[in-house]
Amino acid sequence: SEVKKIAVLGGDGIGPEVVGEALKVLKKTEELFGYKFETEQALFGGIAIDEKGTPLPQETLDLCLASDAVLLGAVGGPKWDSNPAALRPETGLLGIRKALGLFSNIRPATVFDCLKDASTLKPEVLEGTDLIVVRELTGGIYFGEKSRRDTENGQEAIDTCVYNEKEVERIVRQAFDIAMTRSKRLASVDKANVLETSRLWREVVIRVAADYPEVELEHVLVDNCAMQLLRRPASFDVIVTENMFGDILSDEAAMLTGSIGMLSSASLGEGSFGLYEPVHGSAPDIAGQGISNPIATILSVALMFRLTFGYHDAAQAIEDAVKEVLDAGHRTGDIAVDKSKAIGTTAMGDLIIAAM
Amino acid sequence: SEVKKIAVLGGDGIGPEVVGEALKVLKKTEELFGYKFETEQALFGGIAIDEKGTPLPQETLDLCLASDAVLLGAVGGPKWDSNPAALRPETGLLGIRKALGLFSNIRPATVFDCLKDASTLKPEVLEGTDLIVVRELTGGIYFGEKSRRDTENGQEAIDTCVYNEKEVERIVRQAFDIAMTRSKRLASVDKANVLETSRLWREVVIRVAADYPEVELEHVLVDNCAMQLLRRPASFDVIVTENMFGDILSDEAAMLTGSIGMLSSASLGEGSFGLYEPVHGSAPDIAGQGISNPIATILSVALMFRLTFGYHDAAQAIEDAVKEVLDAGHRTGDIAVDKSKAIGTTAMGDLIIAAM
Ligand SMILES: CC(C)[C@H](C(=O)O)[C@@H](O)C(=O)O
Ligand SMILES: CC(C)[C@H](C(=O)O)[C@@H](O)C(=O)O
Repeated sequence: SEVKKIAVLGGDGIGPEVVGEALKVLKKTEELFGYKFETEQALFGGIAIDEKGTPLPQETLDLCLASDAVLLGAVGGPKWDSNPAALRPETGLLGIRKALGLFSNIRPATVFDCLKDASTLKPEVLEGTDLIVVRELTGGIYFGEKSRRDTENGQEAIDTCVYNEKEVERIVRQAFDIAMTRSKRLASVDKANVLETSRLWREVVIRVAADYPEVELEHVLVDNCAMQLLRRPASFDVIVTENMFGDILSDEAAMLTGSIGMLSSASLGEGSFGLYEPVHGSAPDIAGQGISNPIATILSVALMFRLTFGYHDAAQAIEDAVKEVLDAGHRTGDIAVDKSKAIGTTAMGDLIIAAM
Repeated sequence: SEVKKIAVLGGDGIGPEVVGEALKVLKKTEELFGYKFETEQALFGGIAIDEKGTPLPQETLDLCLASDAVLLGAVGGPKWDSNPAALRPETGLLGIRKALGLFSNIRPATVFDCLKDASTLKPEVLEGTDLIVVRELTGGIYFGEKSRRDTENGQEAIDTCVYNEKEVERIVRQAFDIAMTRSKRLASVDKANVLETSRLWREVVIRVAADYPEVELEHVLVDNCAMQLLRRPASFDVIVTENMFGDILSDEAAMLTGSIGMLSSASLGEGSFGLYEPVHGSAPDIAGQGISNPIATILSVALMFRLTFGYHDAAQAIEDAVKEVLDAGHRTGDIAVDKSKAIGTTAMGDLIIAAM
């Protein structure tokens, strides 16, 4: 079969270690399924600032543009936290999303059986929770004009939140499409009682909904959604929302599953191209110790196989292998009840490969 | 002692019923403590739309301006949900905040002992949770310019988020002052890695912090805060944030206590004037049945006594009475484990008055 080109951006902190295990999974997939991958690493985030003076070097972007998919570890760390905006890892993240046209961020929030006690929510409340947050990723207040000016009340800062119908429609259609493949329930989250962008958002959702008569649609105000996620997490299936609300709600949803160290994400544009990354961050405090959990990154590879390459057999093999290893009781430190029995990053990667 | 004038806005749904019980508490306070209140009711919200064609009639605003404090029930309901903005109850709420200069919304999120099982969080996680969200209430994206225009990508909507140093400083100082009266820990929530208004916010917080060397300050990104509230609610003391983030986080914080039906809130400006209201909404589904829980509104009166009038003795009497009635096992339907033993709105009000 044709060679798939994957740009690999390890990034900062534990990023390179967890991505290292994911690369072993790619190699094993080639052996087992006959698929062919060409991987190429590039600098991104803090390490790119250190070595190239910018979080998103042109050659990194060029590599991504010439690839079929991107696998990203994590970026950021205290070292760059007080840098000016242009020299911060996050700026690279925002830049790559915009430059690659990744307007849709897909964040499954699934409860792993073996981790259901790790949640701060009661198990009976969590029971059956399996939702996806679809977040708009290249618009809204993140990318609107920003400015400062002097006034009689001191400096004034301005951010602008902008959405047009086309931007809203493409993300909303994608959410409806995803809902059609699941339990056909969609919650659209906005603040239509206050924001003009939310009123436009809701108008578009109502219009698009006419094309999806089978999908049960509810409009939820963002403040109410923050509450309902806590009160009835299992009642949500697909949640679609704009960039800023999605940032907040997807993190809330991930945390309530108790499985944040295991969650993968996809950022998609038009077509099949996608960027895949674990939801957890760069965890600079444990970087380099060989104790980080590679599962979220390995599952991000499975997500890449499903959404970008259509390699459902290999995706299933990875997901089953992860389940088997967890069921056998193996744990990295972050998810171990008995920390003294925890295994390291490489050992976890090896076990998953062996189980494939 | 001098007569305190209180504007009473029952509003919609269960608003008038719960406010009715709070008025009984005011009367009882006069008998017991010798304080004097003059109360006057006015139309606000949906009922004002129905009777006067606007959610915030001029005579209601005039009454509030001529009063020492405002007691508000709740506004809104399905009847007005599809009205144009000018004829919606929420517009009245935004209007009254702006017109009365109520720039600060104080939302205690306390766990009531008798309700700790009502939370969806595990009791051991919730243990010791007692936090206050201080939300900026008259600025940010709520009140910035809004517009629409036609583009080649369809209609485009714009919201503007604006903050100046003076607006940030007054709310931040208030939060530091509140932290000084508590465990001296303040979490300032922003999105300084993306928003210019958040960067200004953080600069002001850092500058003001110099005047409060005893307060332990942390800066938390809003997405991280949504997670940390779930992971370690008890570690927060005072949280201060801008309008939109505060809307979301204060509701999340309220819900995680499990005590949402019991929580009161204050909206304050310069000086001692304040508007007090229960956190729960108008609950149109149970309105008029006499089964709503008046405790949050009664506790809002206690908050008014503390923050606007300095009547700490009477506030304490109310809070103790509520505790006594709950400890004796009396419950309205919303907080009853055995619903068949639930008592009604009036019975609950009477018990609290008797316990004072
Ligand atoms: C780092 C930050 C700019 C980013 C965001 O807000 O989008 C992050 O929180 C995320 O959700 O990927
Ligand atoms: C009704 C709405 C405009 C209001 C707000 O968003 O401020 C409400 O959610 C609140 O928190 O008081």
